[in-house]
Amino acid sequence: MPVQVQVVGGGVIGLACAWELARNGDEVTVVAPAPGRDGASWVAAGMLAPVTEAQFGESALTALLIEGARLWPGFAAALEKASGQSVGYDTTGTVTVALDTSDRASLDDLLAYQHTLGLEAERRSASECRRLVPALSPAVRGGIEVPGDHAVDNRALLAALVQACRGAGVQFVEGSVRAVEPGPALLLADGRRLTSAHVVLAAGTGIGHVEGLARAGVPVVRPVKGHILRLGPPAQGRGGRVPLLGRTVRGLVRGRSVYLVPRRDGSLVVGATVEERGDPAVQAGAVHELLCDARAIVPGLDELSLLETAAGFRPATPDNTPRIGWTALEGVMVATGHYRNGVLLAPLTATAVADLLGRRPVAALVRALAPA
Amino acid sequence: MPVQVQVVGGGVIGLACAWELARNGDEVTVVAPAPGRDGASWVAAGMLAPVTEAQFGESALTALLIEGARLWPGFAAALEKASGQSVGYDTTGTVTVALDTSDRASLDDLLAYQHTLGLEAERRSASECRRLVPALSPAVRGGIEVPGDHAVDNRALLAALVQACRGAGVQFVEGSVRAVEPGPALLLADGRRLTSAHVVLAAGTGIGHVEGLARAGVPVVRPVKGHILRLGPPAQGRGGRVPLLGRTVRGLVRGRSVYLVPRRDGSLVVGATVEERGDPAVQAGAVHELLCDARAIVPGLDELSLLETAAGFRPATPDNTPRIGWTALEGVMVATGHYRNGVLLAPLTATAVADLLGRRPVAALVRALAPA
Repeated sequence: MPVQVQVVGGGVIGLACAWELARNGDEVTVVAPAPGRDGASWVAAGMLAPVTEAQFGESALTALLIEGARLWPGFAAALEKASGQSVGYDTTGTVTVALDTSDRASLDDLLAYQHTLGLEAERRSASECRRLVPALSPAVRGGIEVPGDHAVDNRALLAALVQACRGAGVQFVEGSVRAVEPGPALLLADGRRLTSAHVVLAAGTGIGHVEGLARAGVPVVRPVKGHILRLGPPAQGRGGRVPLLGRTVRGLVRGRSVYLVPRRDGSLVVGATVEERGDPAVQAGAVHELLCDARAIVPGLDELSLLETAAGFRPATPDNTPRIGWTALEGVMVATGHYRNGVLLAPLTATAVADLLGRRPVAALVRALAPA
Repeated sequence: MPVQVQVVGGGVIGLACAWELARNGDEVTVVAPAPGRDGASWVAAGMLAPVTEAQFGESALTALLIEGARLWPGFAAALEKASGQSVGYDTTGTVTVALDTSDRASLDDLLAYQHTLGLEAERRSASECRRLVPALSPAVRGGIEVPGDHAVDNRALLAALVQACRGAGVQFVEGSVRAVEPGPALLLADGRRLTSAHVVLAAGTGIGHVEGLARAGVPVVRPVKGHILRLGPPAQGRGGRVPLLGRTVRGLVRGRSVYLVPRRDGSLVVGATVEERGDPAVQAGAVHELLCDARAIVPGLDELSLLETAAGFRPATPDNTPRIGWTALEGVMVATGHYRNGVLLAPLTATAVADLLGRRPVAALVRALAPA
């Protein structure tokens, strides 16, 4: 017998959960201001990067990211089949490069840590890096090749998820949630009241203002601002639109991190700042920082068109780890706090939410994410 | 008896000419794709800068710019009265600063040249510059104060000109001119054919593709690309929206020129690259260069919002001097080639065009601008 579920959130997490639940036979409604066209998922770059996102002291999170990545090939194939749309899934791999000798030393430390975790990563000389990525600056001091860190076109992914959701019978309600009430019920900003058997809160930082959550122990996520740029291919004629990059390039540039993720149409996504601030403005200083660092490792970027500058808010918990599980509010589940890894963890999160809703056993990895 | 005149071009030159002719009693039609919302005038910063635009070897042009500036107070007052709109005319003055000692030496050379031309410009120490502009970087090595270089809000100016034109009975035809035919007549891209007693070609680089001009000896202008940025005031709360700058700041930053022009709402226009290229894309490298140089002299700029990035094309002649006068085509006059000084020279050009059309005598300064 189908269960009625309302998913709050129209980003990758909300949409992936909605699609998974609808495929399982549930009656699913997605409630979001602009499903598939908003929030951190829209601003993101789409890296699927368990290895290059591995941070010192976060080995449990890295294990989760590795598991998330393992689900991606099957998820991408199923989604492309269900939606009839490409998601721009690219498995070429990633190179992280160092600009100066100090950056090189930091990368060597990072590589040693990656190896202690058993991750696949290889030290590459400067000339090996340039063989992999001919557009690299001559200043680059070598780097690390990570074949297992991939990428997806996040906006194509969102479009495919919306399409697949519609195909699976998901309903969409465009609106903002003002309060979650026992029942459970959702009270929308425009006064509508929606009831269902279950609610999945998957709106990232988009539910910070919703009433009734904090006292029910629903984890609060803080917004971590990130600026990002989208650059377009150069005018035709200059080398006949040969893309500047054939794979994702990450860089350590005088201690600052930057990444450049190529799209199939020759465009590039350059990101991202990590700022503990909540104002939505695109700031001149952040745009400067990204351009400065990106062109330091790939000078040819100067010739690209600046198509878009944007800022978004990653939903972060104190330990940078998501929270997935039932809350103290009867029938209300949460799937949030994905921070920098929402796209990577979308398939894993969708499966976890479906299992929890179906009262099926879940892996220890997922049980550990239950909200306190 | 009213004369029928068609003005081709909806930028500051075309609109100022149209307004002046209509005030004189002529029946004026402006033909342009988007009057008041397009072209170099829209992208511009609105500096009125005869002194800081003075270049070595261009003393005749500087004399023209000085004469152009002399007309501005009366023009601004008349236009604001006629349109009922502010044009953001700001007579606070300009400071040009040097970032390093080499820039300082270049500025001293420029100052000496300005003085040989009898221009009003004063050497200022670093601390004097900071008294005039508290937001300057501590790195600034002093500069030049130029009280006579002013600014206008170019977009407010365009809106006021359109309004004043309408008030004076000017008609607007939105369209692109494909050919100028004897008669004279204008053939539009959509097939319409407009005839009149006189035509004034004042479309800057917008008439490069028009047929029948080159063989009539109409001067060809080349597009000189310029990138420009518009930055917004920081979020409220930080000093309560005190504007970052109270006057126009120009800088010489390791040999490169940059300017920052404040608007009354606290926003800033930052420009401009000077590039001999004709592609319309906003390029990442140019945006980086402007941000890099502007923040080097005014670091607080980092906190501003990046509201707009744009590129436009200045209409340039080989000697950077405009061409104003009758062409070999009967009844066809040209007013173009204003390069970096279109806003400054708009009042002078409008007066010159009206005098030439009325067969009245014109000053030697204007006679010298006749197309060959």
